[in-house]
Amino acid sequence: MAELYVIGIGPGDAQTLTQRARAALEKADLICGYTLYADLLRPLFPDKEYYSTGMTGELERCRWCLTRAAEGKTAALVCSGDAGVYGMASPVLELAPAYPGVRIEIVPGVTAALSGAALLGAPLGHDFCVISLSDRLTEWGVIEKRLRMAARGDFAICLYNPASRHRADYLKRACDILLSELDGGTVCGLARMIGREGESYRLLDLQTLRDTEADMFTTVFIGSSRTREINGRMVTPRGYDR
Amino acid sequence: MAELYVIGIGPGDAQTLTQRARAALEKADLICGYTLYADLLRPLFPDKEYYSTGMTGELERCRWCLTRAAEGKTAALVCSGDAGVYGMASPVLELAPAYPGVRIEIVPGVTAALSGAALLGAPLGHDFCVISLSDRLTEWGVIEKRLRMAARGDFAICLYNPASRHRADYLKRACDILLSELDGGTVCGLARMIGREGESYRLLDLQTLRDTEADMFTTVFIGSSRTREINGRMVTPRGYDR
Repeated sequence: MAELYVIGIGPGDAQTLTQRARAALEKADLICGYTLYADLLRPLFPDKEYYSTGMTGELERCRWCLTRAAEGKTAALVCSGDAGVYGMASPVLELAPAYPGVRIEIVPGVTAALSGAALLGAPLGHDFCVISLSDRLTEWGVIEKRLRMAARGDFAICLYNPASRHRADYLKRACDILLSELDGGTVCGLARMIGREGESYRLLDLQTLRDTEADMFTTVFIGSSRTREINGRMVTPRGYDR
Repeated sequence: MAELYVIGIGPGDAQTLTQRARAALEKADLICGYTLYADLLRPLFPDKEYYSTGMTGELERCRWCLTRAAEGKTAALVCSGDAGVYGMASPVLELAPAYPGVRIEIVPGVTAALSGAALLGAPLGHDFCVISLSDRLTEWGVIEKRLRMAARGDFAICLYNPASRHRADYLKRACDILLSELDGGTVCGLARMIGREGESYRLLDLQTLRDTEADMFTTVFIGSSRTREINGRMVTPRGYDR
């Protein structure tokens, strides 16, 4: 049977791999992913065939896996975090109609919103939004509108891709939009290198966040109006004190 | 050392337990949680002390764990899905200042937004919001505002707690708000009994969702303007076709 598993492996190391993800990787003949994640899995599953490409090879990886699965191999396409959240599940399912014999199973994983939140405390304890600041595949106007609506809805907000080499000032631009709607004292947090060597986190307010440099290894959290700092952790209450 | 792990065990069975969650449960002397989840873990970790209470015993469970940890035990407080998303991480961290000797570690897990999305395809492939329709701890007006802003921001939306015995028509009320902003043909999905016996999913449009009964075992997904049905799966593209 032609099978393709699209697998979220969680953040950083293999500690956050689920049992289900592990079972799918064991079953696979081939493991395919961005170079960094393939390198992470090789020692754990040494007897597999590997195929990896760099940062912009997403569609090529999807097609390679679908082609090999259609040939009868069991293929595993791995993503960091979750398979669905800015992951490979969407492009694979968009390409799937051209490979009608391939059964596709999406195996979820712990995305950076959840693992970063756990590191900081509980910033996403109530309703929240996840927004990517990358405009590689999205117009900046759409991102801007979503930031504004997230702030108006008083959501806790998690920002992916706050910066890259080509977008050094995007976090500042995002904060300026948020500051037009929210208080400068809003509790915010940064989680960096989640689940990896050098993992760290920091709490700060929105005004300070505006003038802080974030890199591509950082996930950013902006609290709702109810988010507080408690014992150095970032906490959005569920409301049990009502 | 006094330690409390607040652990997300993922949906349904133990398949989606992460290695890190398993290690924390193995280390614990005591496991505490809502009755259903404690029962799920008992066969896997038979030699632990268990403490469980019913649906509204959240604060009691938090205090019990903090008290026992302060006495020197290693305690594990388990939540379905993720520990932070509508989970026990927030109330534990709010109570923590009264138990200064206890080290608290939050262990993330796969929340229903991710596991339900994987079942349906990739509805959360781009920016998204998570909103609970439960007004047990939140005023309905806040929920209504968030639904409206999520729709105006063209987010994909995941709804938790779409109904309960006392709130049979909340999904209908939510859909009416969304329909005032969104097209009735917006692609939606239901994921039910995720990861458990009887797991199922269904795609439908927003107008049909309005007149559909959902129960407390259902997670609801509302697409963005770009979400499509492809081969019977719900897919929100990332935009690689640009």
